Amino acid sequence: MVGGGQLARMTCQAAIALGVDFRILVGSASDSAAQIWSAVTLGDYRSLSDVASFAAGCDVLTFDHEHVPGDVLSDLRTAGVVLRPGPDALRYTQDKLAMRDRLSALGLPCPRYTAIKNLADIEAFGSWPVVLKAVSGGYDGKGVWVCSSAGEARDVLSHSIELMVEEFVPFERELAVLAARSPHKQGAVYPVVQTVQQDGICREVIAPAPGLDGMRAALAQELALRIAAELDVTGLLAVEFFDTGDGLLINELAMRPHNCGHWTIDGARTSQFEQHLRAVLDLPLGSTDLSAPVTVMANVLGGSSASASAAASTSASAAASTSASAAGDVYDRYTHVMAADPGVKVHMYGKEPRPGRKIGHVTVSGGDVRRVRERARRAASFLRWGTEDGE
Amino acid sequence: MVGGGQLARMTCQAAIALGVDFRILVGSASDSAAQIWSAVTLGDYRSLSDVASFAAGCDVLTFDHEHVPGDVLSDLRTAGVVLRPGPDALRYTQDKLAMRDRLSALGLPCPRYTAIKNLADIEAFGSWPVVLKAVSGGYDGKGVWVCSSAGEARDVLSHSIELMVEEFVPFERELAVLAARSPHKQGAVYPVVQTVQQDGICREVIAPAPGLDGMRAALAQELALRIAAELDVTGLLAVEFFDTGDGLLINELAMRPHNCGHWTIDGARTSQFEQHLRAVLDLPLGSTDLSAPVTVMANVLGGSSASASAAASTSASAAASTSASAAGDVYDRYTHVMAADPGVKVHMYGKEPRPGRKIGHVTVSGGDVRRVRERARRAASFLRWGTEDGE
Repeated sequence: MVGGGQLARMTCQAAIALGVDFRILVGSASDSAAQIWSAVTLGDYRSLSDVASFAAGCDVLTFDHEHVPGDVLSDLRTAGVVLRPGPDALRYTQDKLAMRDRLSALGLPCPRYTAIKNLADIEAFGSWPVVLKAVSGGYDGKGVWVCSSAGEARDVLSHSIELMVEEFVPFERELAVLAARSPHKQGAVYPVVQTVQQDGICREVIAPAPGLDGMRAALAQELALRIAAELDVTGLLAVEFFDTGDGLLINELAMRPHNCGHWTIDGARTSQFEQHLRAVLDLPLGSTDLSAPVTVMANVLGGSSASASAAASTSASAAASTSASAAGDVYDRYTHVMAADPGVKVHMYGKEPRPGRKIGHVTVSGGDVRRVRERARRAASFLRWGTEDGE
Repeated sequence: MVGGGQLARMTCQAAIALGVDFRILVGSASDSAAQIWSAVTLGDYRSLSDVASFAAGCDVLTFDHEHVPGDVLSDLRTAGVVLRPGPDALRYTQDKLAMRDRLSALGLPCPRYTAIKNLADIEAFGSWPVVLKAVSGGYDGKGVWVCSSAGEARDVLSHSIELMVEEFVPFERELAVLAARSPHKQGAVYPVVQTVQQDGICREVIAPAPGLDGMRAALAQELALRIAAELDVTGLLAVEFFDTGDGLLINELAMRPHNCGHWTIDGARTSQFEQHLRAVLDLPLGSTDLSAPVTVMANVLGGSSASASAAASTSASAAASTSASAAGDVYDRYTHVMAADPGVKVHMYGKEPRPGRKIGHVTVSGGDVRRVRERARRAASFLRWGTEDGE
C-alpha cells in the first residue's frame, strides 16, 4: 500500500487477521501506520523510482490516497506492476472534470457543471452561490469553495489553478455508499450511510442512514456498483451523494478505504479495510451485513493550536504513554470516555492534534439512533484535543 | 508484553486502535507477533537481564504466556518494574498444586487432588482412571496425562518431574469464563462459553454456552470474578470448568488472553485483547456485551507433517504470498472458504503448520447455534493444512 496514513494503519489490523504479507510505502517513519508496522519502506509516492522499487517486492500495489501522479501510475503499469485500482480508474479521482464528464456520459445524476477559465465563465454559468472546484489538487489543503459573490470567486481565480464550476445543491442531507469490486468482477455493497459534514470536514457517519426510503437506498447501492463496474474499479469505491429530497446527485468518488466506512470495523461483519484487501487480492468478498441495528462513527478532531499545546502539556497518567507525542493526556481523557460509556470503541491514529485534523474516531453501536448519536458525539467531544467542547 | 505468539499478535490489533505505545519481547524475529509489529525487542524471557532491560522502556509489563520464571518475576518487582498481573497472582498459573491449595482454602469447587511421589501414592488416592499433572511445566509439551492403569502412570513417573494426581471427572461438557480486573479493582466478565476439546487441544468455543441454566451461568461468572479478586489478578483471568451435570468444578486458570476468548474479537463489543490492555493500563474496562446472539470460534490446526509439506509445495495463487512460508497455498484455501461463506472471519497467525499446532482460528456469528457451529467447523476444516479433513 502506497501511503502510511490512518487508512493504511487500519488496513494493518485487517492484514494481521488475514495473515497477508502487507507492506507500506511511507513518507516518514512517524506516519500513522509507520509507527506500528514492521514492513515499512521510506519513499516518495511522487517518485517513479521510489514507488517502482517498493512495488518490486509486491504482488499487488494499492493506495491509501489518490495522490500518486498519473504519469507515475502509467509508467508503473507499463513496467508490469499490478495496480489495483488501475490508472484508468484512479484518473477519475484525480481529475474531477473527467469524472463529471464520464458519469454524465453514463447518464448518471450529477450536479450541473462546466469547466471555467474566468469570472465571465462563472457568471455565464448561473446565479450565486456556485461551487468552484479545483479540477486536480487545490491549494491550502482545499479543493472546493462555495462562492456567494464575484469577489469570493475572484479570490479563488487568483490562484491560477484549473477550475470548474458546479451548481450549489441545496441538499437535505448527504449520503454515502461504499462498494467493493474484485478483478473477478465480484461486487459487494454496504448499507447506505448518512454523513454529517461541518466546515467541509466529516464529523459523523450514521449507519444505516436513518429513515431512508428503501427504493432510494437500493438506487444508491445500485449506482455505486454500476460506477465501480463502468470505471473498472478494483478495491473499494466510496460514492458521496447529495439527497435533495427529490432524488440523489453524485458528489464525490474515492477509490480506497474512506472515512464514510470507518464504522464498518465495529458495525459490520467485514471491515472496509479487510474488504479492500480481499478485493485487491482477488479473494471472495466478505459479508457487508450490519452487526448492530445502528452504528454511529464520530471523528475526533484536533482543536485550536493554542489550546492543543496546552492540553499536550498536562501530565500523562502514570499508566503508559501514547504514540503521538503531543497527545500526552490521552489517558486522562480515555478514563472519562471509557468510564462514562464502556461500549464506546476508540480508534486513535497516533497523529499530532493540529486544528481540524482527524486524529481518531469513535464508534458506538446500539438500537436507538438518537441515543447512539448522542453517545458517539459525547465520546468524540471528550477526546477532542484542546477545544472548548473537549475541555 | 513478554512473548510474541498469536496472543501478542492479536493484542497488536487492539493496541493500534487504542493508540498505545505497545512493545513486545520476542524470542525470534519470526515469532507470530514479531512478523508484523514495529516495536520488537529480541530477548530471552528466562533471562532477568533481557526482561529487565526490555522493561526499562515500559510503564507496565504484561505477558502472553506464564513461563517467565518466578524468581525473574520477583527480581523485576524488587527492581520496581510494574508487573500486571503480579508475581503473587502469576504463581497460581505456574504451580498447579499451589493453585489447588489456594482455591480449596477459599472453599471453591475443585476436583479431589493430592501431591504424589510414587505409584503407591497414586494407588492410595483412588481407583483408575486418574489424572496426573505436572505441578509446573511438564515434558514433550504436555503437562496433563489421563492414566487408566499403573503401567501408564509408571511411564509418567519415569520422567522424574514433580507430580500431583486428580480425580478423573466424568464431565458432561467443559465451560470457560473470562474475567478482567484492573488495579482500580474494577471487574468485568464475559458470558460463559462452552469449549470443545479433542486430544487435549481446544477445537471449538461456543459463545454463549448453549442451554446453560441461568443460575449456573451466574455462578460461573461470580466464581471467576471472585478468583480474580482473591488472587489479586490484574488483566485477564480465564477459568476453565468441568460441568458435571450436578455442578461446576474448576479445572484450570490462565492470567492472559486465552483461546477461550478469541471469539470476542468478532462476537463481543470489546475484544479480550483490548480488555487485557485496558485492565493492565488501569483504564476503565469495556463492555462485554455480545455483538451477535451466537458466535462460534474454531481453531485451525496444522495437519500431519507429511501432508503439510505436500500442501506447502503446491503453488500459491498469483495474488500474493503469506507471512508463513510453508503456508503457500493459503490463498487457494481462502478462496474456497470465503466464497462458500462470506460471513466467516479468518484469523491466521503466520505460523508454520506443524501437526496439531494452532495456526489460526475462524469465527462465525449468527442466530442458530447448530448452523453457526456447522459453518465454523466447515471453515476451519477447509483451512486446516495438509490433513484429510482439509483436502
